[in-house]
Amino acid sequence: MTITVYGTAASGNCHKVKIVLDVTGRAYVWRETDIMKAETRTREFLRLNPNGKVPVVVLEDGAALAESNAILWYFGEGTPLIPSDRLRRARMLQWMFFEQYTHEPAIAVARFIRVFQQRVDDPRLPELLTRGHRALTVMEQHLAQHAFFPGEHMSLADLALFAYTHRADEGGFDLAPFPAVRAWLDRCRALAGVTEMPAP
Amino acid sequence: MTITVYGTAASGNCHKVKIVLDVTGRAYVWRETDIMKAETRTREFLRLNPNGKVPVVVLEDGAALAESNAILWYFGEGTPLIPSDRLRRARMLQWMFFEQYTHEPAIAVARFIRVFQQRVDDPRLPELLTRGHRALTVMEQHLAQHAFFPGEHMSLADLALFAYTHRADEGGFDLAPFPAVRAWLDRCRALAGVTEMPAP
Repeated sequence: MTITVYGTAASGNCHKVKIVLDVTGRAYVWRETDIMKAETRTREFLRLNPNGKVPVVVLEDGAALAESNAILWYFGEGTPLIPSDRLRRARMLQWMFFEQYTHEPAIAVARFIRVFQQRVDDPRLPELLTRGHRALTVMEQHLAQHAFFPGEHMSLADLALFAYTHRADEGGFDLAPFPAVRAWLDRCRALAGVTEMPAP
Repeated sequence: MTITVYGTAASGNCHKVKIVLDVTGRAYVWRETDIMKAETRTREFLRLNPNGKVPVVVLEDGAALAESNAILWYFGEGTPLIPSDRLRRARMLQWMFFEQYTHEPAIAVARFIRVFQQRVDDPRLPELLTRGHRALTVMEQHLAQHAFFPGEHMSLADLALFAYTHRADEGGFDLAPFPAVRAWLDRCRALAGVTEMPAP
């Protein structure tokens, strides 16, 4: 059985899965799943992921795996995308948890409100912009000293952070004050298999 | 140099670190850090974690590591707390990302507002209660079929989810409708080194 991805093409969390599969050269079928039509809340979908979220991958043997960064880990194992050094491996996970806890809930949610819900005057946006700028500042500080996350070689943490950062403008974020972030995005784009996320 | 933990004893994310160090039998020094007095925003602290959050551990060689679940990973390596099977390892991470993305932002944040900020009438609480109940329901469904997360043996995902679940009452959550969750909490408590989080 071919790997099947249940995902929304214009979702960064889903686009991460496309990127890791393309970068590692795996064959897969993409089943476009529309979150705005509640296709993640059907009984069939909830059997794959009781938490009702995309992305989900169904592996060759029929096992389902959810949470974008856990999926990155699964396909990254055995490749140079996971550092062989123990501390670097933990630091890669540190940035992946930073991505899901600090970066995504600000930058991706602002984009979701503006682009998917088309509510550019939503009262939550100013606070999300402040928090998102803080996350970008933390990234800028790191990238002023290192080529990638966590260190000098591209890892799963780069793929995770690339997903919403390269479309941060759609969330209302201006990357002009973050030159190290912009240079890092270009270094990510140079890797075969890293593609731009399509517009919603 | 002894391992140093910068943490707030009554924070679940910090209590996870205490638990994994106690469970794996490591010596460490605990440096109590008061988030309510902005002790995570000092210049000295930001050198350890530019993201300005506890917990942070400083390892024997002086290297700093942040993000509670990345710290769990670091100390869990080479122990039975990380499954040896590739799919199970990814599923463990699935539950750890569920914890940080879906569980903690509802259950821990509700507790923070009620207990640390003492705002029991905060307008955000009803929505947080709804989301937290949904997370507990996802856990209950899993635990009706499995002893632990992700499967039949205790893993880092159990330690991560134990931290805020066993104090969910302080966030306004009633665990009475979740018998499988309550039985699982008792199975976690049976492991040497797993302790209750102190009151704030």
